[in-house]
Amino acid sequence: MDAKEASATDLKRPREEDDNAAAAASMETENGDQTKEPACFSSVIPGWFSEMSPMWPGEAHSLKVEKVLFQGKSDYQDVIVFQSATYGKVLVLDGVIQLTERDECAYQEMITHLPLCSIPNPKKVLVIGGGDGGVLREVARHASVEQIDMCEIDKMVVDVSKQFFPNVAIGFEDPRVNLVIGDGVAFLKNAAEGSYDAVIVDSSDPIGPAKELFEKPFFQSVARALRPGGVVCTQAESLWLHMDIIEDIVSNCREIFKGSVNYAWTSVPTYPRHVSLPLNIQSHGVIGFMLCSTEGPDVDFKNPVNPIDDSSSKSNGPLKFYNAEIHSAAFCLPSFAKKVIESKAN
Amino acid sequence: MDAKEASATDLKRPREEDDNAAAAASMETENGDQTKEPACFSSVIPGWFSEMSPMWPGEAHSLKVEKVLFQGKSDYQDVIVFQSATYGKVLVLDGVIQLTERDECAYQEMITHLPLCSIPNPKKVLVIGGGDGGVLREVARHASVEQIDMCEIDKMVVDVSKQFFPNVAIGFEDPRVNLVIGDGVAFLKNAAEGSYDAVIVDSSDPIGPAKELFEKPFFQSVARALRPGGVVCTQAESLWLHMDIIEDIVSNCREIFKGSVNYAWTSVPTYPRHVSLPLNIQSHGVIGFMLCSTEGPDVDFKNPVNPIDDSSSKSNGPLKFYNAEIHSAAFCLPSFAKKVIESKAN
Repeated sequence: MDAKEASATDLKRPREEDDNAAAAASMETENGDQTKEPACFSSVIPGWFSEMSPMWPGEAHSLKVEKVLFQGKSDYQDVIVFQSATYGKVLVLDGVIQLTERDECAYQEMITHLPLCSIPNPKKVLVIGGGDGGVLREVARHASVEQIDMCEIDKMVVDVSKQFFPNVAIGFEDPRVNLVIGDGVAFLKNAAEGSYDAVIVDSSDPIGPAKELFEKPFFQSVARALRPGGVVCTQAESLWLHMDIIEDIVSNCREIFKGSVNYAWTSVPTYPRHVSLPLNIQSHGVIGFMLCSTEGPDVDFKNPVNPIDDSSSKSNGPLKFYNAEIHSAAFCLPSFAKKVIESKAN
Repeated sequence: MDAKEASATDLKRPREEDDNAAAAASMETENGDQTKEPACFSSVIPGWFSEMSPMWPGEAHSLKVEKVLFQGKSDYQDVIVFQSATYGKVLVLDGVIQLTERDECAYQEMITHLPLCSIPNPKKVLVIGGGDGGVLREVARHASVEQIDMCEIDKMVVDVSKQFFPNVAIGFEDPRVNLVIGDGVAFLKNAAEGSYDAVIVDSSDPIGPAKELFEKPFFQSVARALRPGGVVCTQAESLWLHMDIIEDIVSNCREIFKGSVNYAWTSVPTYPRHVSLPLNIQSHGVIGFMLCSTEGPDVDFKNPVNPIDDSSSKSNGPLKFYNAEIHSAAFCLPSFAKKVIESKAN
């Protein structure tokens, strides 16, 4: 992050040598100085970060803050990084947890390998959002991939990830990656028709800069940019709340994507994070994904055809969460959701 | 609950017509009167219930309290029922959420049908703990079952469930149920050898009255009480924390149960609740189960042989969560857990 950028975006970064900043940075022992705390900290427990929102009323998930590492305001959102007591470093955008070091593997691996292991030899992949780089790290495991385009709207997220989450941002180091800082909606409109094998939409809340990424025209652009039998994966809400919203999403996808349309889900303890889709909500420790394919060669998402080679582990470490069994299991839904979703999807 | 019991256990039950009690019962509008709030409420957000414990340091899950419905102290634990803003009524024992109306289906259905659908024609079933009656409700769906014994240590839990959670406590109405209020450890020691087809251990934390239910001698009693090829299901922790503890549990079970030994998991948003097993912990929106069988006819837990007849829905309402697919999917583990557990279990 250069100084100009910091100035332009009202960047406030606590420095160890600065007494005032140190007060904000050691909240556990210095609770009295409330003015130094980010607003979301003071709303619940002194010295704790609480994720509360009118979008998930009546509930809060709190993590103990050991130290605030970064606090800034980009052109698009508030950006905070703190050291938590038990989840490692945590990235927060506009008050919503996006990533913790402890459980980021589940989300990054599933949103990436559910689509990429469902088609043979993916070559050209587009990631919309995903500025932390974790999805890139996972896409890079696929030896068949020749080009990875990423369009992220907020450069501060990329910079902060490179500085504080090197094991996540390692994804940017792959030579196949082309990073574009810009609007994902515009990027897709300009993309050549039928040019991608897979599109992964890794966005934050629909009320922030990612709003348009949850609207029907965007999904139409995705479908247009995919080759026949190409696949998209986007997060899609928690089954535990708002089955009505998921129902609508599935209906919309069924209209737009003429191949297969499936809902999958997995466990991510600290969700809400990358919480997603119209009206959004907390995720209750689970996150859902919409997996769709365009008309063309059949894609049977439930039975992966493209296993990840173990040799992929050499550069980016071993897979921690994903395997072929948990891929298939992700499509098994609770009874209350199964009937609704399957009736809309097929 | 009779007056004598209430007196013996320092029972405090807010009554609408009592001004003082009403202050405690409407915390949202009457935050000033802190002395009327249960201790766990005041620890975090005024008017909110927060589940915090040294057992899961650095983290809290909070629900907004609309009204305290019951507050008592049994011979064994503190018992609270409150109306939450978004999860319906909530039962709390010793500060830990045991049950919410919104998501109780997932836990009750999975802990019951994972074992009972894995053996043909279960006839005699023992439930240890489970005083809310939800597991009984689920066992009762199985037409083959002739006798359901339950041993619950705390009568107040049974009474409170009957009063505030009628859709859960409906399980007690089944004529096959024999309820014994007493110590589950002693009950099992006195049980006839080889007498049960299935034992379900639905207990609260191991630091409360349920402590012994998480120790090796108890598991040995369970094995002794089961017929050859009989099955046990007990909650077993979250994979997201303390894989080391789960590893030990699996090793112990492998020693004691000479049939199959498996770990399964599922999503329950408000867990920790019925949080379980040595040293316990929060569950991060998931709960695990140990499923073991004694020497005898093979039990393949991953492939259920005893589907639940849809006619079971007539009396107790339709299944909300469980189905055969989600049964099998529960045994698919993330890579970080799979190797460890499978190496110990087989």
